Amino acid sequence: MKYDELYALLRRRGVLWPTAEVYGGAQGLYDYGPLGARLKRRIEEAWTAWFVGMSHDYYLIDPTDLLPEAVVRASGHLENFTDPEVVCDACHTAFRADTVLEKIRPEGVDGLSSPEIAEIVRANQVRCPHCGSTQLSVPPPFHLMFGVDFGVTGRERAYLRPETAQSSYLAFARMWDVGRHALPLGIAVVGKAYRNEIAPRQVLFRMRAFTQAELQIFFDPNDFALPFDSVREERLPVLRVPRRESGEESPEWETAAELVARGNLPEFYVYHMVHLFRFVRDVLRYPSDRIRFFEKSDAERAFYNRIQFDLEVHLESLAGYKELGAVHYRGDYDLTRHGEGAGRDFTVTLTGGRKVLPHVLELTFGVDRNVWATADLLLGKDGERTVWRLPPYLAPVAVGVFPLIPKEQGSYAARLANELAARGLPVDLDDTGTIGKRYARMDEAGTPFCITVDGGTVGTGPERDTVTLRERDGRTQSRVPVAELAARIAPALTLPWPVRP
Amino acid sequence: MKYDELYALLRRRGVLWPTAEVYGGAQGLYDYGPLGARLKRRIEEAWTAWFVGMSHDYYLIDPTDLLPEAVVRASGHLENFTDPEVVCDACHTAFRADTVLEKIRPEGVDGLSSPEIAEIVRANQVRCPHCGSTQLSVPPPFHLMFGVDFGVTGRERAYLRPETAQSSYLAFARMWDVGRHALPLGIAVVGKAYRNEIAPRQVLFRMRAFTQAELQIFFDPNDFALPFDSVREERLPVLRVPRRESGEESPEWETAAELVARGNLPEFYVYHMVHLFRFVRDVLRYPSDRIRFFEKSDAERAFYNRIQFDLEVHLESLAGYKELGAVHYRGDYDLTRHGEGAGRDFTVTLTGGRKVLPHVLELTFGVDRNVWATADLLLGKDGERTVWRLPPYLAPVAVGVFPLIPKEQGSYAARLANELAARGLPVDLDDTGTIGKRYARMDEAGTPFCITVDGGTVGTGPERDTVTLRERDGRTQSRVPVAELAARIAPALTLPWPVRP
Repeated sequence: MKYDELYALLRRRGVLWPTAEVYGGAQGLYDYGPLGARLKRRIEEAWTAWFVGMSHDYYLIDPTDLLPEAVVRASGHLENFTDPEVVCDACHTAFRADTVLEKIRPEGVDGLSSPEIAEIVRANQVRCPHCGSTQLSVPPPFHLMFGVDFGVTGRERAYLRPETAQSSYLAFARMWDVGRHALPLGIAVVGKAYRNEIAPRQVLFRMRAFTQAELQIFFDPNDFALPFDSVREERLPVLRVPRRESGEESPEWETAAELVARGNLPEFYVYHMVHLFRFVRDVLRYPSDRIRFFEKSDAERAFYNRIQFDLEVHLESLAGYKELGAVHYRGDYDLTRHGEGAGRDFTVTLTGGRKVLPHVLELTFGVDRNVWATADLLLGKDGERTVWRLPPYLAPVAVGVFPLIPKEQGSYAARLANELAARGLPVDLDDTGTIGKRYARMDEAGTPFCITVDGGTVGTGPERDTVTLRERDGRTQSRVPVAELAARIAPALTLPWPVRP
Repeated sequence: MKYDELYALLRRRGVLWPTAEVYGGAQGLYDYGPLGARLKRRIEEAWTAWFVGMSHDYYLIDPTDLLPEAVVRASGHLENFTDPEVVCDACHTAFRADTVLEKIRPEGVDGLSSPEIAEIVRANQVRCPHCGSTQLSVPPPFHLMFGVDFGVTGRERAYLRPETAQSSYLAFARMWDVGRHALPLGIAVVGKAYRNEIAPRQVLFRMRAFTQAELQIFFDPNDFALPFDSVREERLPVLRVPRRESGEESPEWETAAELVARGNLPEFYVYHMVHLFRFVRDVLRYPSDRIRFFEKSDAERAFYNRIQFDLEVHLESLAGYKELGAVHYRGDYDLTRHGEGAGRDFTVTLTGGRKVLPHVLELTFGVDRNVWATADLLLGKDGERTVWRLPPYLAPVAVGVFPLIPKEQGSYAARLANELAARGLPVDLDDTGTIGKRYARMDEAGTPFCITVDGGTVGTGPERDTVTLRERDGRTQSRVPVAELAARIAPALTLPWPVRP
């Protein structure tokens, strides 16, 4: 679907809407309604099972999202977490400099100072994208962190974390003590991050408060053994820097083994590219031909990232490839910086006595963006129907329960819905409109199963205590004894793994 | 346990620790480690199932935690969300005025102006609790909201929400459209709230960033029918204002019917007191004799609360009763205020044509405080053992899996652990130390089941593919075929309801 149509559908169904909508909304903030909240939670749970489930030594923690100033000073965010900005002196609109200069400098403005950007603006007689004026000025870079006065003295500052990763780095020393004193050690966070974006847009794609799922794997750079054979033959869609520079947009398919042998990438890095790829292909069920790994060049990467491929997916609603996750090899940057900041040495002693400052491999994943992507990729027309073909284990509602005639079968249906809910199945009781309309509502919400309670169910004949079970994808209908329902439905709702190698 | 001992144990086991601990910590902020994160999540899930599960018209949403200024102006927080403060001019420590004046004015300082408080301080020659100086001054009340500059103009402000409730009020109009156009309509939020507390203390009890679970029930004041008969005979421990004023601390037990008939409370209000009481007694398994409903007097309640009983629990670690939740009857205050603020009328038209501005019944629940309460109430010595007697469905780890001799049975145990994890059971593989030590670690973490894989399991004799299953509470051990494990364990992990009336 196109952007407008998709967003309107998601608002109408209460999947999401702008925060403080009744006040006219707040730019860059969104609230999830019942369907969106459950879908988001299910995606988070699937991510956790898949990534934290990689090892018994990987853990999910739940840290707070406020960080003291010393932390963001050490991480470099206090100094560097800015976006160059261009402001129109005529209409007073602010823009990201890279957006205004998109055509003149497609390679972006990273590394340029404000005066350098101002010179480009002047030399090219750039006009305001909003009002057309040439009265553009370039103030000092705009800081993206939200800071608060913390405590009672007025002298302390804290910051809403700009990325969840920092919370994992802070936890490393404690988790080393709590865990098995072994590397690799994984520390994952699923939680909020905050950025005062200059130009929030595209709903869930550039938000000012958003949810990240990030796994930081702390490993010994001399010994990060993984079962590479289990991924060796997997083919990945990769767009490397040289092909990009020749103007290509579509990826080449290369096996993991080729990426290591010819691409000069470490096995541990490619192993995790495969793991991320399998997650979006096999668990989220994104079509393979929409996916690519987009290599970031030296100029594009943050300087501490030694290797970076973004996982991008082509979305019709946003008319292009969008980053939904990434694999970052960050070296020892983070533990070094926080070691300096905290006056600590985060070197650990391994069994056998060898000392090592762990390196970090970071797997990032944008939860909100993937909520949108499931809608873009899996929700669409099928003839007359609008169907959200979510994998059943991600569906916000597993089972719709319909009393055919609410007055006569309503209490039976309610009791049945309660019983299914008590088994942990997310249920929606719908007693409004024709059964066809109720199917349509459930198709649109991605509900894989619908149950109709009718006269036969509550009667005394051979259909007593049987219901009509209808499946979303095949549109098949069958008569099923109530006692067998849970067993018929539950397998489809089980996440498709064990995953530990 | 005493406070120090309990907190030390929770830190050591990685249940929780101060945020940015390696930097010396941040006052009033805490991070949950693996055990704490899972326990907190399980409590949130139990709360959601119990309270949102009350009706098919109650919904959990997931709104953002930043609010535009117009929202907190309308709610009254911008003007009134302050604490009177006393500052020592000698040692520069800030205190909550009610704490400094605790003995002189046990009824608190609500409603007093700063000059009035200053006069009490002067007249009583109050001394600084920290350095003993009498040089105390009383500045204007201290604002508890964290505000941020929002957007690029420098003229917009947003606030970290001081309570999750506001997000539900903002969502009412949208949820009315999304739902069945019927009252009561419930909108629940489980999420962060933020307060710049003057004196954060008692770990999870006065935090600057904390998690609330709150259900706002929007209802028709002329028609809020509930199955009161199902709660009529339930006895509740209640401490009402007259008994409090006579110096009593312990509650009286009264039936729900008595509270309505003699206590002049509405049926709908008492019904929800029972529901909350049953949750902490039957689901969280707090001992009944530690619980009381503490009625707030006219002076103590926020002016918009028509009726307020706090659910309090006596905690040894904090040497007294602590508020863990509450039932607030807020009337039409919230929809009226936001109607004025947003220039909207939130009156709805019911089937049949009657128009009504819904009233709000609010059920609040402090998630972090209840994490601590489960430790205070359920974690303790049992002879030589330290056991956390969490209900199995709340336990962060359901099953500990131990290879007796890791070199010989390690891979079998790992495979078994994976299989159990794939069925959704939270598993911990522990291969360090004697089996007795591993049992002890699991007892301390609240793990209800332990499985030992030994020579018999991996051998060819009659014990092949059987393991020793040990239960935490009875300390019973039995030999169980691996194929029967999930069926033996799963029932204990099922939340104990259906709950819908």
